[in-house]
Amino acid sequence: MKKLEDLQEMISEAVEKLAFPGYPAALYEPITYILSLGGKRMRPALLLMACDLFGGDVNAAMPPALAIEVFHNFTLMHDDIMDNAPLRRGSITVHEKWNQNVGILSGDVMLIEGYKLMMQVKEHLLRPIMNIFNETAVSVCEGQQIDMEFEQRNDAGIDEYLNMIRLKTAVVLGGALKIGALIGGAGQADADLLSSFGVHLGVAFQLQDDILDVYGDPEKFGKQVGGDIIANKKTYLLLKALELADERQRAALDQQLGLKQFDNNTKVGAVTALYNALDVRRYAEETMQAYAEKAFAALDAINLPEAHKQYLRDFADGLLVREN
Amino acid sequence: MKKLEDLQEMISEAVEKLAFPGYPAALYEPITYILSLGGKRMRPALLLMACDLFGGDVNAAMPPALAIEVFHNFTLMHDDIMDNAPLRRGSITVHEKWNQNVGILSGDVMLIEGYKLMMQVKEHLLRPIMNIFNETAVSVCEGQQIDMEFEQRNDAGIDEYLNMIRLKTAVVLGGALKIGALIGGAGQADADLLSSFGVHLGVAFQLQDDILDVYGDPEKFGKQVGGDIIANKKTYLLLKALELADERQRAALDQQLGLKQFDNNTKVGAVTALYNALDVRRYAEETMQAYAEKAFAALDAINLPEAHKQYLRDFADGLLVREN
Repeated sequence: MKKLEDLQEMISEAVEKLAFPGYPAALYEPITYILSLGGKRMRPALLLMACDLFGGDVNAAMPPALAIEVFHNFTLMHDDIMDNAPLRRGSITVHEKWNQNVGILSGDVMLIEGYKLMMQVKEHLLRPIMNIFNETAVSVCEGQQIDMEFEQRNDAGIDEYLNMIRLKTAVVLGGALKIGALIGGAGQADADLLSSFGVHLGVAFQLQDDILDVYGDPEKFGKQVGGDIIANKKTYLLLKALELADERQRAALDQQLGLKQFDNNTKVGAVTALYNALDVRRYAEETMQAYAEKAFAALDAINLPEAHKQYLRDFADGLLVREN
Repeated sequence: MKKLEDLQEMISEAVEKLAFPGYPAALYEPITYILSLGGKRMRPALLLMACDLFGGDVNAAMPPALAIEVFHNFTLMHDDIMDNAPLRRGSITVHEKWNQNVGILSGDVMLIEGYKLMMQVKEHLLRPIMNIFNETAVSVCEGQQIDMEFEQRNDAGIDEYLNMIRLKTAVVLGGALKIGALIGGAGQADADLLSSFGVHLGVAFQLQDDILDVYGDPEKFGKQVGGDIIANKKTYLLLKALELADERQRAALDQQLGLKQFDNNTKVGAVTALYNALDVRRYAEETMQAYAEKAFAALDAINLPEAHKQYLRDFADGLLVREN
């Protein structure tokens, strides 16, 4: 089996070689630009990995893997407009570097370029793979819409949150794995199981991200600890705290959420103390564990040699004990 | 052969029956809303017409026809954001009725819904039709980008203008006809010829639109005569006038284009007088005629019964002598 890092490297090289038309420049340059900003190339690497696990030729899976990466970056380009974000991976965002209209239209054409790449599969896989891609793409849009509404609402619950992160981030992981598996020669049942593995692992990963934001080792985490608290982001921890808080705790939480001016460390300390009092970390870890177990149960049922399953288990373990 | 009006009516009924998920509402309601604003449904009707002409079942062509209409309305939703337009077909635009983020994201999911509909074709047509759809969609984005740049530039020429209207509006007509023809059972050569007919006719139609804006009968035209002049829109007439003007005429044109405040009728009168002096209407009509002739030449070469060709000639004649 190929190492994940080698697959990521293969993707990075292939992304660099992706060529788009030169005219009109303002339509295509932003595509090359956003793709050049890097990232871990995890989604396309998972697609190649799935293909490899089922004994397929990873080169045959490269165009669909690139499709997933192009699609992912299309969502980032449009999300950055919607979030009014000035920076993406430390570089200026497309709508700031060019303008908003360029961001909208380049994103649109990126989505189409994603479809063109995804179609580069064998005839008998064209329809099934395009169906998966359509479902995945719709899911990401739905998740993004629900996420935007979350920030405006005060009545969002845990179940809605879990559904949102599933739609917005986890389904793509499942879709990438499923497409790769089919290209690798997997049967429908195994492809579905691998997809389920990916979706559940994706939700678990996102929950871990929520936990690490507050409880991660600042040395290893790589981001500002408490960033979600500072931004009033509706994470699993916050939603659970709002659910469990008594009247006094709720008032204290609402006060922190309503602050217009504050010292970051003071706010992070106050909210973390409330989280600790309500034991929300334990709930988050239990929920994360439940998703991880579902992922592993799907994995166990897949018809693959034990060594291949172990590879996937090691991959999942690596993801879920990361500290950054 | 089915009458074009009947095909348009079939499309309108099918558009009304299009159902999208209920949740999240802000993602899907704008799709139903923009599709409910009407329009002539010309593009999807052309797709059905092409299918019918080659003896196909128009019902089999309905999902791809709806795909073309959904795609077209996706472009309108995003164009309205880019143009900052408050109204579309007399109703409030999506980004004004909801907000800009909803307009971006609903548009994105509309494009995906377009793909889902376009995939509802027989197996052997899936790849060829998806390829045409991809090409068409990319072309519209390129045309929109070039059009936006046109408004910022002072050095745009006639050839670029013709290329822009071809990409932005004519290619979709050709694509719709080609897809319909293939579903109807046409061979590749005939489908290509019908596409060529559509593209050339589309450019001719757009040139006629430029001419009618200035020289149309206000009673029949249905829009404000001179609307393009009032908006400084870079039409064939204006670009040709800028190309042909001597120093004095150029100064007069530039003066009109630079006016911050003006009486509409006075400006339309002054610019029209310059157009008349430079005889730009004749150039526009000659160019339009040249495109129409290319359209008819493609039509003549198609392998269809004479009565069917006559149907297409009558359709084209009807489009090109319209006064509204």
